[in-house]
Amino acid sequence: MAITVVGSVAFDSIETPAGKRKRCLGGAATYFSLAASYFTKARGIDMRGIERAKGKSFFWEGSYMDDLNQAKTHITDLNVFAAFEPKIPEVYADSEFLFLANIDPVLQRRVREAMPKARMVAGDTMNYWIKDHKPALLEVLKELDVLLINDTEVRMLAGKDNLVQAARAVLAMGPSSLVVKHGEYGATLFHAAAAKGEQPKQTFRAPALPLDEVVDPTGAGDSFAGGFFGYLAAQPEITAASYRNAMFYGSVMGSFACERFGTERMQELSREEIDQRFKLFRELTHLD
Amino acid sequence: MAITVVGSVAFDSIETPAGKRKRCLGGAATYFSLAASYFTKARGIDMRGIERAKGKSFFWEGSYMDDLNQAKTHITDLNVFAAFEPKIPEVYADSEFLFLANIDPVLQRRVREAMPKARMVAGDTMNYWIKDHKPALLEVLKELDVLLINDTEVRMLAGKDNLVQAARAVLAMGPSSLVVKHGEYGATLFHAAAAKGEQPKQTFRAPALPLDEVVDPTGAGDSFAGGFFGYLAAQPEITAASYRNAMFYGSVMGSFACERFGTERMQELSREEIDQRFKLFRELTHLD
Repeated sequence: MAITVVGSVAFDSIETPAGKRKRCLGGAATYFSLAASYFTKARGIDMRGIERAKGKSFFWEGSYMDDLNQAKTHITDLNVFAAFEPKIPEVYADSEFLFLANIDPVLQRRVREAMPKARMVAGDTMNYWIKDHKPALLEVLKELDVLLINDTEVRMLAGKDNLVQAARAVLAMGPSSLVVKHGEYGATLFHAAAAKGEQPKQTFRAPALPLDEVVDPTGAGDSFAGGFFGYLAAQPEITAASYRNAMFYGSVMGSFACERFGTERMQELSREEIDQRFKLFRELTHLD
Repeated sequence: MAITVVGSVAFDSIETPAGKRKRCLGGAATYFSLAASYFTKARGIDMRGIERAKGKSFFWEGSYMDDLNQAKTHITDLNVFAAFEPKIPEVYADSEFLFLANIDPVLQRRVREAMPKARMVAGDTMNYWIKDHKPALLEVLKELDVLLINDTEVRMLAGKDNLVQAARAVLAMGPSSLVVKHGEYGATLFHAAAAKGEQPKQTFRAPALPLDEVVDPTGAGDSFAGGFFGYLAAQPEITAASYRNAMFYGSVMGSFACERFGTERMQELSREEIDQRFKLFRELTHLD
């Protein structure tokens, strides 16, 4: 099943304790697409929707020298991205899956409205939109099936310190499922209360892989989202078990993303490596 | 199989966002014993080894107002504990399991030497001993089967930021297994490389329960240790699978400890509640 993703394509300059890279390919849509592509038959990424605009590409420069969980931004040059206005190619219009990466919620909403056939919509956001653009964000959340954000963001969005209470408050804003990413500690999937007659879905926690060396965490969250949503979109039917598997595949793709700079690792994986790591995640968490 | 525990018995005054308690029963040995007792046939705690000394008991006053993961200490009155010199009753001498709770490593070592029949020894420590008493602590580690400490402590002890590298360095100091506690994110069990001809034991991550309300985290780590070691001591044979189950039982007991002030919850549990929660932990993490 096709997924449409709306988000940034960028150049990133990154420094971590493992070294540095100048202007490598980045952006949320890039990481997401690469990760999700492993769950399609032909690793197909339809790039017709990538817009080429006059001017410089979005550029980000950052480092993770003190804390690998927290990027320090040095430069953000929006460039052509400042005037970005998503245009959905007609060939995308029948996508049943839509991922709204971290962009202005006004644009996220517009895209969602332009894709009425999407039957499952997932999205991301960040502290900036939560803090200064909450009304627009709340409109997006109403239409979302799955929101994927991190601990800090869920607490900020809900205004509650306790994770379970915060998750419940965010689910009440609209999404039927919420993935809270905990960085090196994995991620937790919360579901809204089941509708009448439906089987309730249980909270699920996926681990992250304890990595010997985190080379570059840039894009780990978007790669998680790509693995998670890519797996779901490939299922003939989405059950509670599909969600649990999707959490594992999300975590698997996030772990790979951290192993090299930029998209390096994400570009050269094989489905065998992915399934082998999935097995490792199972051994890491399962009693038998 | 009997466990001997050496550690503090104390009075704690605690304040958390959920309220406050004055002088409730606390201390590492108290939490550990209560938690471990659920894994014995008759919930027996042999208190003949509790020493009554002239003077006031160890007293701690602290709060968790800003961050439930981090206690703020207001008062530590060691009182009679300052001159504590463990005396092992003769009836304890045949214990095959020994838990060295967080006390002066010089005393931990002395106890270990006084219990030559102990075939499995686990222990805890804290930043203070790591920072200012490292040589004595290193002597203890040489003789330890399992060390249970938190993220910050393992990084401090190893002098490495990366958790996997830090764990490997700590295992090289002596313990054959290392449990790293991550607070609300659970705990990870690392094993030293297998000896020749032995089956290697794999890294294992147990979750913590996402709790709606953390009433009081005091004693959660010692309750984890009690559940972990109590379960192991009750097994006819200790296998790789026993370790995994022990991690779950540790996490289960830690989650209960947080639900009420002090030892309140730890005193009134049933084995049925414990096994029910164990089942919940399985559902929280297992794919099928």
